[in-house]
Amino acid sequence: MKTSRSGRLVDMTYYLLERPRTLVSLSYFSDRYDSAKSSISEDLTILKKTFEERGIGLLETISGAAGGARFTPYMLREEADEFISSMTNAIDDDTRVLPGGYVYLSDLLGDPRMLNHIGRLIATQYLREPIDAVMTAATKGVPVAQAVANELNVPFVIVRDDTKVTEGPTMSVNYVTGQSQRLEKLELSRRSLPMGSRVLIVDDFMKAGGTIRGMASLVKEFEGQVVGTAVVAEGYAESRVIDKYTSLVRVDANQENGGVTVAPGNYATEIYIGNEPIGLRNV
Amino acid sequence: MKTSRSGRLVDMTYYLLERPRTLVSLSYFSDRYDSAKSSISEDLTILKKTFEERGIGLLETISGAAGGARFTPYMLREEADEFISSMTNAIDDDTRVLPGGYVYLSDLLGDPRMLNHIGRLIATQYLREPIDAVMTAATKGVPVAQAVANELNVPFVIVRDDTKVTEGPTMSVNYVTGQSQRLEKLELSRRSLPMGSRVLIVDDFMKAGGTIRGMASLVKEFEGQVVGTAVVAEGYAESRVIDKYTSLVRVDANQENGGVTVAPGNYATEIYIGNEPIGLRNV
Repeated sequence: MKTSRSGRLVDMTYYLLERPRTLVSLSYFSDRYDSAKSSISEDLTILKKTFEERGIGLLETISGAAGGARFTPYMLREEADEFISSMTNAIDDDTRVLPGGYVYLSDLLGDPRMLNHIGRLIATQYLREPIDAVMTAATKGVPVAQAVANELNVPFVIVRDDTKVTEGPTMSVNYVTGQSQRLEKLELSRRSLPMGSRVLIVDDFMKAGGTIRGMASLVKEFEGQVVGTAVVAEGYAESRVIDKYTSLVRVDANQENGGVTVAPGNYATEIYIGNEPIGLRNV
Repeated sequence: MKTSRSGRLVDMTYYLLERPRTLVSLSYFSDRYDSAKSSISEDLTILKKTFEERGIGLLETISGAAGGARFTPYMLREEADEFISSMTNAIDDDTRVLPGGYVYLSDLLGDPRMLNHIGRLIATQYLREPIDAVMTAATKGVPVAQAVANELNVPFVIVRDDTKVTEGPTMSVNYVTGQSQRLEKLELSRRSLPMGSRVLIVDDFMKAGGTIRGMASLVKEFEGQVVGTAVVAEGYAESRVIDKYTSLVRVDANQENGGVTVAPGNYATEIYIGNEPIGLRNV
């Protein structure tokens, strides 16, 4: 049954939002709505314009018989700043400081709306970069990895520091923690990551960066390539063992007076030129 | 600037999909698009019809000056069966069987599209039920909890069996594992779950159900109520220590011949009447 333009616009929006970074052919939509490809093309022009105006994402359309549309979500700088400001406000609360200089963030990393924003913001940096998988360390990095992977529409893999969980054959590396210089082990199921993958490393929190360096050497064991590193919060560290990363916020717990200091991370300079994602240029 | 009907339909779809189970007022949309409330009402009628026809979800509209719209995602039985069939096909692979009768499922639980389907299907059972939080056990349950929480638009909380991770003050319970009858401990950060919450318990895998029973007693310590229990896969168990649960698939590893047997779980009878979610009746 032929679907009206109104019905098509609603369903196409739903359909494309559900499948980021996937090319959907004109023929598919044409069959789905029993409508001419020329009508579908007009629909896509409307979607593209609205997605752009509202800062929802990039809709690339490929014209011609073999054409189609691919939706890549992003977040404009303005929305990112607003989101980060709401996040720093939420974190700026001295009751979050735990013994040992830790800051309680689990409520934020257990809030789906917050995580969707985190995922969309981090994915914005890799708007035009092919990524095969997102990697993180158990347990607290998992929600962040899932949120980012959801926007990139790629699998996420979970690196562990214990062998309790049965995962089949694993590959493992030893690494030195950044600050306390302890020797630790990280391992990943052989089956979970194809050799030679392009990997984005994410985590909830980074101090000196030891765990992230450990994950990077694990990627190397899988003969893969680290495309980038992003963390939700970076903490205070006298020195870091990794040099390039993106952070959304900076959080320091002051152990002397039990207070917390929070500020935006480096995301603005890493992800944006003006209000636009760096990757949006030269489209 | 006044937004055209086409632009409104696209953006309203996006806006509502991003905020499941949230009442958005007519006034908000009217301001956002600089359009009359009567036009917004007509838009909502189009969205409602398309959401229903395409099995996207329920759009409840409240008319009048204080009116608005609330979107609740669901999955129809037909789509659920198709999804579960693709899932059982993916699991039906003898190379997944690991020593000890475990079945490797981490690739499926690290696939965002698969997780979104799992989340939407499990949430469908609680279409009209108020839920305050989703609870799971670290680490493998986390992606499932996040996916379900995302559809329900509520926080998820992660119960742990170790104290390594700093979470601040915790509440803990001891429980007896279902099969090996070992005594274990589960704990949850005090701060992460308000007392008296209505909790949906989810997990990736259940055998006898010991961990789930442990989580249920933790909910009790928080003076809360278990609204339901859902697992992605149930394994073989001679007897179970919990009586009511929803499962998406049944997976048995045959340790003698190293094969795997997989079948649909009990979701069909727990969630549906005919093609429709049970909760959709008597709207």
